[in-house]
Amino acid sequence: MLAEHILKRLADIVGPEHLATGTVHRITHSFDATQRQCLPDAVVHPGSTEEISQIVRLANEERIPVLPRGAGSGFTGGSLPVCGGIVLVLTRMNRILEIDTDNLIAIVEPGVVTGRLQKEVERLGLFYPPDPASKDFSTLGGNIAECAGGPRCVKYGVTRDYVLGLTVVTPTGNVIRTGGRTMKNVVGYDLTRLLVGSEGTLGIVTRVILRLLPKPEARKTMLVAFASIDGAAQAVSAIIRSKIIPTTLEFMDRAAIDCVRRATSLDLPLECQAVLIIEVDGDRAQMTDQARKVLDISRPFGVLETRTAETAEESEAIWKVRRSVSPSLRALNPHKFNEDIVVPRSQVPAMIRALETISTRYRVPIVNFGHAGDGNIHVNVMVDLRQPGMEVTVRQVLDEVFRTAVGLGGSVSGEHGIGTAKAPYITMELDAPTLAAMWAVKQALDPNNIMNPGKIFPENLANDPPPASLQPLTVPDHD
Amino acid sequence: MLAEHILKRLADIVGPEHLATGTVHRITHSFDATQRQCLPDAVVHPGSTEEISQIVRLANEERIPVLPRGAGSGFTGGSLPVCGGIVLVLTRMNRILEIDTDNLIAIVEPGVVTGRLQKEVERLGLFYPPDPASKDFSTLGGNIAECAGGPRCVKYGVTRDYVLGLTVVTPTGNVIRTGGRTMKNVVGYDLTRLLVGSEGTLGIVTRVILRLLPKPEARKTMLVAFASIDGAAQAVSAIIRSKIIPTTLEFMDRAAIDCVRRATSLDLPLECQAVLIIEVDGDRAQMTDQARKVLDISRPFGVLETRTAETAEESEAIWKVRRSVSPSLRALNPHKFNEDIVVPRSQVPAMIRALETISTRYRVPIVNFGHAGDGNIHVNVMVDLRQPGMEVTVRQVLDEVFRTAVGLGGSVSGEHGIGTAKAPYITMELDAPTLAAMWAVKQALDPNNIMNPGKIFPENLANDPPPASLQPLTVPDHD
Repeated sequence: MLAEHILKRLADIVGPEHLATGTVHRITHSFDATQRQCLPDAVVHPGSTEEISQIVRLANEERIPVLPRGAGSGFTGGSLPVCGGIVLVLTRMNRILEIDTDNLIAIVEPGVVTGRLQKEVERLGLFYPPDPASKDFSTLGGNIAECAGGPRCVKYGVTRDYVLGLTVVTPTGNVIRTGGRTMKNVVGYDLTRLLVGSEGTLGIVTRVILRLLPKPEARKTMLVAFASIDGAAQAVSAIIRSKIIPTTLEFMDRAAIDCVRRATSLDLPLECQAVLIIEVDGDRAQMTDQARKVLDISRPFGVLETRTAETAEESEAIWKVRRSVSPSLRALNPHKFNEDIVVPRSQVPAMIRALETISTRYRVPIVNFGHAGDGNIHVNVMVDLRQPGMEVTVRQVLDEVFRTAVGLGGSVSGEHGIGTAKAPYITMELDAPTLAAMWAVKQALDPNNIMNPGKIFPENLANDPPPASLQPLTVPDHD
Repeated sequence: MLAEHILKRLADIVGPEHLATGTVHRITHSFDATQRQCLPDAVVHPGSTEEISQIVRLANEERIPVLPRGAGSGFTGGSLPVCGGIVLVLTRMNRILEIDTDNLIAIVEPGVVTGRLQKEVERLGLFYPPDPASKDFSTLGGNIAECAGGPRCVKYGVTRDYVLGLTVVTPTGNVIRTGGRTMKNVVGYDLTRLLVGSEGTLGIVTRVILRLLPKPEARKTMLVAFASIDGAAQAVSAIIRSKIIPTTLEFMDRAAIDCVRRATSLDLPLECQAVLIIEVDGDRAQMTDQARKVLDISRPFGVLETRTAETAEESEAIWKVRRSVSPSLRALNPHKFNEDIVVPRSQVPAMIRALETISTRYRVPIVNFGHAGDGNIHVNVMVDLRQPGMEVTVRQVLDEVFRTAVGLGGSVSGEHGIGTAKAPYITMELDAPTLAAMWAVKQALDPNNIMNPGKIFPENLANDPPPASLQPLTVPDHD
């Protein structure tokens, strides 16, 4: 627990109604989508940059961990108070401050839910492309902390590509302003992009300048069933080589298709080994032309069936297939380890084959789907942790999964970040000098290691390593 | 001069044929496109990451400045050896190591000239969009150090948007590897983007993973003459709002048009106050449609004349107008201060009006052209420094130019960087805590301040401030 004089100062800063130390509040802010749990000492709901600056200054003086938190929907434990401390919930700071239709810019507070911004700008004919599956509840602050992606990234890039500038409270309580309202800016170091994806360990974002695009006129959705995963992957490469970059290029492997088949009335050919859900956008004429080309290009690669949505309802029906995967996994086993490896696009078939081998060898179902266009695969290892020895098996499986991805020129995380869940695996990908350079940056900006400590870095670097125990999981439904 | 034992070790590392200490070599590596001059102590041409690591380790032990250098074509003094030291010329490391047509990736060494990579990938149907005007001689390493832009950025973004991963020798001589071969990667801090635009002050890039795009099928160029700069700016906004993002949206103001008129046989209406050169690209059908729309949208905003290139020759003729601006400036005055401010797109007319006022008040010609699509204006202050008091006048003019840009929500540099030339102005844009955060990062990675010292930071932060004297300039021709 925090000392009385600290609690008093916190209450003075934010107002007593925005400080909570009761058990219920502490518990409700003790977990994220990983379902691991660590109790914070206090929960604060600040209302301004100035309040956050004062809180962080106090915390830095008193060496108390500060945990910035949006919706708490992260998949890698990024917002878990693994060392206790003050959870700083940013959901009160949820104003869209400005939408500048001339310069295609939005200025927002970090607590704005991503989907809300998208709806607001779309009303004005504009478009904010990043679309993590959590967009209806996750916040822009959280998206920035993790550099969230989503299906549209193959065409439109990730969160990083839309953040032009930030106001940030540094770990010593200073307020800094990075970037600006222009696409081009080469004044000093690019702290904007350093902060994007830094998982709340280098500061607290309190204001964001986002880049917007004009909203595409129309969109067309197709489902293509393939006789082999190689065929699907070759089709993906051929589509992109043909100079068409679809908005989304989602795939589901055989295991994912089987899950959906069991859970819904999906009627795909039985020999179907892979499905691509392809969306193109643009002006109406161009889009129809592109959709036709996409199907023509795919055909030689063992296409069993194609469906093209002509109406919004038909498009929705196709997306429902993709969205049914996560809920349908429950039928396999109660506990899910949802990893988001990424490999170079051409290595997707090799990765899927390796995952099938791992699944067979360890006798655990592994279901894969994700973003074929950028090689980002959601690997779902479905287990029952109540079975004896299963925790060890899961560790071995994950270890092999990550090792294979890195071996294929890929990465242990494409969208979810490292947090606590993947910290033990980061050294597979980053060598000691690279991690040391990152840790030097961390220490330079956060000399007392108060800002979201115990995240990203492996135990030998981080002062306060997270407890490594695996807790039973419930199955979250968004990927 | 460096001590004998240091020169011996350098010769041992790179081979004596790649070390030069003679006056001629030192002079030829003493300046860049700013035409300021500072002599280095030695010039080294390393051939590998390992050699660079050894050189930097030695330099760090001996506290000798290291100056990475590509073609030396920078506009802000980024490669000047303002504190002496070892110039490390990277032009020997000029191999294109791999072009991966499946994953749309190129792996290159830093000494590759940008235009050469563009030609190589275009032969394979691919496209590397960043196109600084210096692309036929500047290197990718230099482009990365400055985060180079160019006309196409309005559609395709800047260098930062195409760098996926780096191999870097840190200022203590370690070799680190950032990012990777995938578009998505959220493993640890984004050191890749921190290094892009850091002007060689945080390390030496020795290997680069670049993202490529499919090459657009076709391209169409148009020239549109406007009766007012406001009309041109409104047309730019209207085009982008209409969901068309042209490849380039270049503009020339009245002063630039007059210069070209005097130098060439350009026959534009006399009342023409602004010219836009607009290029669209895409598949052939889409492009023709977009070109027509662009002209239709522009028409209500005071268009005096339009020209559409139907052939490559006609396109070349249009671009010749734009490229004639820089050489034609010589007629005005012998010395050019070429600044590259950026303002939010909608503020371009306000900025141009302010520049006209400044030009009148100080009685110095100011000629403006640049990238209207992203608000990046090349401001050319033409003076004769042999006139008494002109150095002081230039300082006052530049001070007002930068102050106005920042006041309009813009930035003191969109493409050229800070280097030494703009270091005195950086505090106009960045406040003390933000600069302090940047300096903390610099110190963390370069504790002995050996890596390109005296750049970016103002004198009170950098240990070894650059000499501030202005030297007579010749007029470089690329912008």
